[in-house]
Amino acid sequence: MTATDEAATGTLAAHTSSAQAAAEQDVTDRVLASFDGCTDTRLAELMAGLVRHLHAYIREVRLTEDEWNAAIRFLTDAGDITDDKRQEFILASDVLGASMQMIAVNNPTYGDATESTVFGPFFAEDAPRIELGGDVSGGASGQPCWVEGTVRDTDGNPVRGARVEVWEADDDGFYDAQYTDGRVAGRAWMETDADGGFRFWGLTPTPYPIPHDGPVGRLLAATGRSPVRPAHLHFMVTAPGLRTLVTHIFDADDPQLPIGDAVFGIKDSLVKKFEPQAPGAPAPDGRDLAGRTWARSRFDIVLAPEGM
Amino acid sequence: MTATDEAATGTLAAHTSSAQAAAEQDVTDRVLASFDGCTDTRLAELMAGLVRHLHAYIREVRLTEDEWNAAIRFLTDAGDITDDKRQEFILASDVLGASMQMIAVNNPTYGDATESTVFGPFFAEDAPRIELGGDVSGGASGQPCWVEGTVRDTDGNPVRGARVEVWEADDDGFYDAQYTDGRVAGRAWMETDADGGFRFWGLTPTPYPIPHDGPVGRLLAATGRSPVRPAHLHFMVTAPGLRTLVTHIFDADDPQLPIGDAVFGIKDSLVKKFEPQAPGAPAPDGRDLAGRTWARSRFDIVLAPEGM
Repeated sequence: MTATDEAATGTLAAHTSSAQAAAEQDVTDRVLASFDGCTDTRLAELMAGLVRHLHAYIREVRLTEDEWNAAIRFLTDAGDITDDKRQEFILASDVLGASMQMIAVNNPTYGDATESTVFGPFFAEDAPRIELGGDVSGGASGQPCWVEGTVRDTDGNPVRGARVEVWEADDDGFYDAQYTDGRVAGRAWMETDADGGFRFWGLTPTPYPIPHDGPVGRLLAATGRSPVRPAHLHFMVTAPGLRTLVTHIFDADDPQLPIGDAVFGIKDSLVKKFEPQAPGAPAPDGRDLAGRTWARSRFDIVLAPEGM
Repeated sequence: MTATDEAATGTLAAHTSSAQAAAEQDVTDRVLASFDGCTDTRLAELMAGLVRHLHAYIREVRLTEDEWNAAIRFLTDAGDITDDKRQEFILASDVLGASMQMIAVNNPTYGDATESTVFGPFFAEDAPRIELGGDVSGGASGQPCWVEGTVRDTDGNPVRGARVEVWEADDDGFYDAQYTDGRVAGRAWMETDADGGFRFWGLTPTPYPIPHDGPVGRLLAATGRSPVRPAHLHFMVTAPGLRTLVTHIFDADDPQLPIGDAVFGIKDSLVKKFEPQAPGAPAPDGRDLAGRTWARSRFDIVLAPEGM
C-alpha cells in the first residue's frame, strides 16, 4: 500500500465513520422531534432526557441485537413474575441504585435532619395502629427488640402526633407480604406523644436476601453480586409541615454490614447499636420476656421542613 | 442583609449544593463498584454504562418520587398486557426509537447495501414456505399486490437460494398474531432463483395503528403522538456469508408517509411505488383477479457482506 493509498483509505474510513455517526444522531433527532407536540412541558422534558440517555447508551456500548433481545427478555420475565405481592421492577430499580439515586435527589441533606434510604417493595398502606409501647411483630418469629426514640424538627422542637410507621422481616427474612396465608405481621404505626417520643416492641432485625428467584436474582448472580441486605428496620415518619422521612436503621454489629447492601441503602448515620440483653434483664415496660434474650435500640429522628 | 451576610449565605448555598452533588455522585460510584466482581467483561461494560446513564438521567431531570412511581407503574402495566401474542416492551422500545438506534448501530451503511429498519413484534418463526409467485396472504383481507425483485451482493452478483421472509398486516391493520382464531396469514417465505429473483402475491399494504390500548398507547396520547405506522411490507432476507437484512418497503403514495411513523422506521431508500392496476389489467403470472383492482411493486435488494 502506498502512502497515497493509505491516505485515501484513511479518508474513506473517516468519511464512513462520520456518515455512520450522522445516521445514528439522525435517529435520536427524529425521536426528540416527535415530542414537539407534547403540551405537558414536564412530561416533554422527561421524555427528551430519557431518549437522549437511552440512545447515547445504545451508541456508546454498541448494543447488539442479541443484547437488545436479552433486555426485552429481562423486562418480559420481570413482568411475568410481578403480581400483587412481588414487584420485580422495584427490585430492579433498587439493585441498579436508581431508587437510592432518586431518593438522594429528592431528600437533600438539611441541617441535622435524619437521612433517607430506600423504600423497598414491602410497605403496606393498611398496617394496624398500635399504642406507644405496643408490639409490631404481630406474631412474626424473631428475638424481641425494644426500640425507642423521639421525633424533633431541625430547631430541636419535639413533634407531637407524628405518624411513625415501622415494618420489618421476620427472622426467616420474610415480610408478611411474602407469607402465603395473608397474615399481617411485622408492621404497625403509632403516634408520638407530647414529647415527640415513640417506643415499641419489634423484632431484632436479621440479614436476608431480596427475592432472587427471578430475573433480578439471575442478574445479580451473573454479575457476581450478593442478593443479601444487612439487618435493618424500616421507618416512615410523617407530620404536617415537615418533609416525610423514609428510612431504616441498620444493626452496627451485623457481620453483613461491611460486605454491603444489595440495594445500596446503608448510610453511616443510620447504623445503630442493637444492644443484646441477657435472659431475665428487666424490660423497660416491665414486660415478662419468659427468660428469653432480647435487644434494645434507640433512634432519634429529626425531620426537615417540608419543601426543603 | 449586609454584604458579609450575603457572602456567607452564598458560601453556605454553594457548599450545600456541592455536598449534595457529592452525595449523588457517591450513590453512582457505589453502584458502579458493586460490579467490580463481574468476570464477564462485556456484561460489566453493559451494566456500568446502564448505571451511569440511568443515574445521570435521574439527576439531570431531578426525577420526583411520583414520577419514579409512574415509571414503575408503566413497566408493571407493560408486563401485565404482555403475553404470547402481545409484546409491550418491544413496542416501548420501538416508540422511543431505541429499536431503530440499535438497528442503526448494528447495520452500518455499506456501499449500496439495502438499508435496515425496525423488526417489530409480529415476526413468527414458523411461517409457511411458498413457491416463487405464490401467495403470502393466506386468505387475509386486502387488495392483491404483486411484488417482485432480486437479491444481489454489493458486487452485483445475484444471490441464489436466499431466504426471503415477508410478513404484513391485513387491510384492517391486523397481523395474524392479533387474530383470535390462530390462523396463519399474511406471512410466508420463499427462496430466490438462480438469478436472485423472487416474486409473490401479497396484499397492498395499508396504514394501521400499533396496538395502543396499553401503557405505550397512553404514553403516545399523553405526549401528543400518533400511534399510526404508514403502509409497509416487512422483509427479512438471509443468505450464507451475507449480513441478514431486516427491513420494510413503504408505499410512496400513502398519505400517512409525510406525517411520520410511530416507530421511526421510514428511510427514503425504502419508499417504493405501489402502482395501482385497473380492473382487468393482465397479471404478470396470468392469475385471474376476477375483475378486482390490484397493485404491483418492485424491490431490488442488496446484501452487505457478513460482519461488515
